[in-house]
Amino acid sequence: MKAAIIGTTGYGGVELIRILHSHPLFTIKSVHTTREEVPVWNEYPHLINIIENKLEQINPEKIAKECDIVFFATPTGVSGKLVQEFIDKEIQLVDLSGDLRLRNTEDYQKWYKKEPVSAEVVKSFAYGLSEWNKENIASSKKISNPGCYPTATLLGLAPVVKENLIIPNSIIIDAKSGISGAGRSPSRANMFAEMSGNFKIYKVNEHQHIPEIEQQLVDWNAEMKAITFSTHLLPTSRGIMATIYATLNKSITSEHIHDLYMEMYKNSPFVRVRPLHTYPSIKEVTGSNFCDIGINVDERTGRLTIVSVIDNLVKGAAGQAIQNANIMNGYEETMGLQFLPLYP
Amino acid sequence: MKAAIIGTTGYGGVELIRILHSHPLFTIKSVHTTREEVPVWNEYPHLINIIENKLEQINPEKIAKECDIVFFATPTGVSGKLVQEFIDKEIQLVDLSGDLRLRNTEDYQKWYKKEPVSAEVVKSFAYGLSEWNKENIASSKKISNPGCYPTATLLGLAPVVKENLIIPNSIIIDAKSGISGAGRSPSRANMFAEMSGNFKIYKVNEHQHIPEIEQQLVDWNAEMKAITFSTHLLPTSRGIMATIYATLNKSITSEHIHDLYMEMYKNSPFVRVRPLHTYPSIKEVTGSNFCDIGINVDERTGRLTIVSVIDNLVKGAAGQAIQNANIMNGYEETMGLQFLPLYP
Amino acid sequence: MKAAIIGTTGYGGVELIRILHSHPLFTIKSVHTTREEVPVWNEYPHLINIIENKLEQINPEKIAKECDIVFFATPTGVSGKLVQEFIDKEIQLVDLSGDLRLRNTEDYQKWYKKEPVSAEVVKSFAYGLSEWNKENIASSKKISNPGCYPTATLLGLAPVVKENLIIPNSIIIDAKSGISGAGRSPSRANMFAEMSGNFKIYKVNEHQHIPEIEQQLVDWNAEMKAITFSTHLLPTSRGIMATIYATLNKSITSEHIHDLYMEMYKNSPFVRVRPLHTYPSIKEVTGSNFCDIGINVDERTGRLTIVSVIDNLVKGAAGQAIQNANIMNGYEETMGLQFLPLYP
Amino acid sequence: MKAAIIGTTGYGGVELIRILHSHPLFTIKSVHTTREEVPVWNEYPHLINIIENKLEQINPEKIAKECDIVFFATPTGVSGKLVQEFIDKEIQLVDLSGDLRLRNTEDYQKWYKKEPVSAEVVKSFAYGLSEWNKENIASSKKISNPGCYPTATLLGLAPVVKENLIIPNSIIIDAKSGISGAGRSPSRANMFAEMSGNFKIYKVNEHQHIPEIEQQLVDWNAEMKAITFSTHLLPTSRGIMATIYATLNKSITSEHIHDLYMEMYKNSPFVRVRPLHTYPSIKEVTGSNFCDIGINVDERTGRLTIVSVIDNLVKGAAGQAIQNANIMNGYEETMGLQFLPLYP
Repeated sequence: MKAAIIGTTGYGGVELIRILHSHPLFTIKSVHTTREEVPVWNEYPHLINIIENKLEQINPEKIAKECDIVFFATPTGVSGKLVQEFIDKEIQLVDLSGDLRLRNTEDYQKWYKKEPVSAEVVKSFAYGLSEWNKENIASSKKISNPGCYPTATLLGLAPVVKENLIIPNSIIIDAKSGISGAGRSPSRANMFAEMSGNFKIYKVNEHQHIPEIEQQLVDWNAEMKAITFSTHLLPTSRGIMATIYATLNKSITSEHIHDLYMEMYKNSPFVRVRPLHTYPSIKEVTGSNFCDIGINVDERTGRLTIVSVIDNLVKGAAGQAIQNANIMNGYEETMGLQFLPLYP
Repeated sequence: MKAAIIGTTGYGGVELIRILHSHPLFTIKSVHTTREEVPVWNEYPHLINIIENKLEQINPEKIAKECDIVFFATPTGVSGKLVQEFIDKEIQLVDLSGDLRLRNTEDYQKWYKKEPVSAEVVKSFAYGLSEWNKENIASSKKISNPGCYPTATLLGLAPVVKENLIIPNSIIIDAKSGISGAGRSPSRANMFAEMSGNFKIYKVNEHQHIPEIEQQLVDWNAEMKAITFSTHLLPTSRGIMATIYATLNKSITSEHIHDLYMEMYKNSPFVRVRPLHTYPSIKEVTGSNFCDIGINVDERTGRLTIVSVIDNLVKGAAGQAIQNANIMNGYEETMGLQFLPLYP
Repeated sequence: MKAAIIGTTGYGGVELIRILHSHPLFTIKSVHTTREEVPVWNEYPHLINIIENKLEQINPEKIAKECDIVFFATPTGVSGKLVQEFIDKEIQLVDLSGDLRLRNTEDYQKWYKKEPVSAEVVKSFAYGLSEWNKENIASSKKISNPGCYPTATLLGLAPVVKENLIIPNSIIIDAKSGISGAGRSPSRANMFAEMSGNFKIYKVNEHQHIPEIEQQLVDWNAEMKAITFSTHLLPTSRGIMATIYATLNKSITSEHIHDLYMEMYKNSPFVRVRPLHTYPSIKEVTGSNFCDIGINVDERTGRLTIVSVIDNLVKGAAGQAIQNANIMNGYEETMGLQFLPLYP
Repeated sequence: MKAAIIGTTGYGGVELIRILHSHPLFTIKSVHTTREEVPVWNEYPHLINIIENKLEQINPEKIAKECDIVFFATPTGVSGKLVQEFIDKEIQLVDLSGDLRLRNTEDYQKWYKKEPVSAEVVKSFAYGLSEWNKENIASSKKISNPGCYPTATLLGLAPVVKENLIIPNSIIIDAKSGISGAGRSPSRANMFAEMSGNFKIYKVNEHQHIPEIEQQLVDWNAEMKAITFSTHLLPTSRGIMATIYATLNKSITSEHIHDLYMEMYKNSPFVRVRPLHTYPSIKEVTGSNFCDIGINVDERTGRLTIVSVIDNLVKGAAGQAIQNANIMNGYEETMGLQFLPLYP
């Protein structure tokens, strides 16, 4: 299948290139940007001698004629508009932005502070949380790829929320992300001299991924309530850890919870539930499509701690997008995604 | 006053040297270790031409005769035994270890898994949380310096715990520390290649600082219950951020909470309450004795988020130890501690 | 083909696993260590659910019977002895240590300060600088893989040394390496708190890679003389940059030198000569088997500057080892090595 | 004395604040910028509660009336123009830019590619290499502070150049700098995600500090010739290491060279010559005004290697500026500069 990538100059776009380049069934046909038409390696010298494509302007007609699938790695606010130019064409769409995730357009306006895409368009996209929405994805031609924080958080919470084991209003998510999540536009906040040796909290209870997480939690369990959600910036390029706290609604052992996670993810090749009393660190998934999960029950407080880590650019963006593209096309979901973490 | 430092080769010890070297009233008389008797700069080349002292063996008689105050930067388990050799001598004692903090020796045994110092000895030491125990410190000659995590956590929680504004069993502390907190003994876990680009969780609900925090919280407010406490390792040398969550026991605004913090810390030169809607990052206190605090009330959940940052080696160790030594001797508490953060 | 890896717990060994795991024609049959027989993921949790092999003791008979090729990622000093137990067996050998590179055993003794392997054994191994020794490698069954610094340095110098364009005694190599090059044994020098924010020089004109470089330079051009060689440690996990200086023996333009490099490496898929006036950085090859080269002629001084970068664990170790295994077996030299750099 | 700082929002400016804040004889009277008039802590939150000054516009009359000394931490190109508005006023001037260092205005035009300040103005400024130009500094009221690379390089080379021990055209300087040297304006090149895990070479034989170094070398020894000079960016905030190579013009031992350096710097409190066979690393001077030097003679090649490290923002900028201000005013040169490196 021939693939187009739109928004190639961001970190999500270049990660799509990295993965698709080695994919056995997708070929990168064209790469697009709204900026200058230069070879990709002008923007990313590490691609010299590998990707000879020039960045091209975005011509929906031409792309739809030449390609079978298009990945949008464009910014939120831009993506939604662009996607609509492709919506009636004969081409599969995978959008990595936040524009097509919230079915409630008021939520979009409130949290994103931008003009929403119509609810009808949003609903025509399957929400691409691969492990839990496989059937919808498989039968769709349009995917809205989850956010990075929601991916780590929802994979971590799914078993206990679906099994109704926690008190609805007790969820607190303390999330940490490497700085590539902030994109490739230079700003004071993402300068090396400012972030090196540093660790910052930002968007306390204000992050736009909150309604996306809550929407899915309520879909799974209508009792679920508003979450507390803090995001922090790590002095690393990549990686997300969500440390999730929730109060159990009855006395349950660590072993019981661990068994539940093992069972629920036994058919999910990219979710690795760690042995009891061990926890994943972000470098153990860097460069891979894994989501690794560790759990702990504290008997003193009756509280559950869930640790969920991903590479924000892989399972949190480009990797999951390709996993969804695999599912959508009836391929093995692991196809082209079986590379190992880069360690150390 | 003449000071001796015991346990000089660890990071706490060398930070004591850094600060005492510029202190107007304390002079470093001797530095001690159980290891080889070499010049300090053999261990720490950055001290060459500055600190000419040789590391000496620990001779309590000699130290008590030559010095007015001794700082113990020795490891937990070692410190408690050592301190007792000085306890009847005419010399001020400041211990930076965990050995003299827990009045309940069973707690010590349970969490530290070591033989405790007798309760009597422990009680003869004032707990050196400078901002909140000033009178005891001022009238004592023996100080047990707080742990790094407890310092950040307790300064963050004090106002709402003392004013009884939160639900007792609702406290969750998600703490992150730079790796100098793990000491200077090489191990796989603290290697550069393992920690660079990494972020790890460790000791989930098992950290030995838990009983220290709970002991102080109950001292402040007898209603307080067990806390949930997770610790993480940051890929930085220094710095702690405690992100603290608690549920308010009634509807209170951010403004009200902020006013309370401003009021309660108005006479504390090392606690900087940040303007509403802004939060400190760890680099903004690196190398200084400040504890910076930001607060947020989430109206959707009725939950309070408190962000508290310190330099673990300064306010979390050597800096607070010297602040306590100042108070104990009737000096200005800021004496020798007014250096600024090193930024960037 | 079935492969055994000996010395799996070091960084070279685990990188062999990463690459061989995705190689279309080599399968990891067994992994070996002299330590405990535990699953590999006990040592490297990032391999959990992927590599189920247990680490096994080293039984040459058994390995030779079950495998077609064995990779030695064992330490220098150990490797040479181990290799000899396999030397008469029906199995291909690729050694990543320094033990089989120096034909002059006195050089080995002088620079490594260890007991050398006999010259006869050393000579039975082909020196695996893939780009320049392809015929020997192709016709051999035993490969001595080059050191990381020599790989970057020799690929950078080959064109001008072979073409006799520089003054023989004018070569100065200022080399910088990420800290994974120092191995996985914890020491004070490779602790995060010591290396973060740091940059160190070590082994000034004493590095054991000096005779390896000089041996190859003289093979290429008998006029070549002793080099000046400094090594530095970067606060990164991976990557080597060799900044190489040499005085031209006549007036030559940058363009001329650049043409020469382009010509000489036109059939070397892993050497990327950068456009004139641009230079590679180490992150642009991280995780890949590329060696990227930039060149500059300074007309003011008549001096040539060559910048050569590799990932020390890939082209500087495991990647080149597999490239050599490909060549030795008549496979495409790029097989299993076409993954892109991980950027950012 | 009352000091004004112009160009406060850059890293040089904020480092002047850090140091002057603790200086016993200089007081920060006012801080200036061409940007918005906000409190300094709006730009630098780590200064909250410490520096209450608002940033003010630059009014030379007012500044000259209210202050005794003004430090210019303004960008090259801007500084030269600004300084001239103060040149006839009754106020001491210390300029940290490159605008007033090159006596030959053609050199300035060639290397800086900007309009030069007149040679007459340039010559009215003393070149502030504190250790080697003390008399001129002491008798001047106008100082041009050296560049960061020239400081490390010239302090490293002075003894052998002055003593005429090296071959004039043999000097090669391989310099590495932390990224704060690139200033505080965000750009792709200084983003965390781009520099983390990275190491880059830039301005190969094109750096504007080349003529500054050459000018001083020739002042010391008229035989000296053009240098080879490469600059690299380290993934650290601070620190410069210059690894300097030169060929000795006769056979001299390491011991002899080392004695020479010890002798020549015996009265320079900020230059620390390391014991033979040991070398400084950048973290061993971070946050301090030291320049640490190690030397090595390679008998195989007759070449000298000099390792010189500084903190680029302290000895390479603000620290040396204040050292010069001390000298100019007849104070002890170490006044306010005796703080230790921040380690680890």
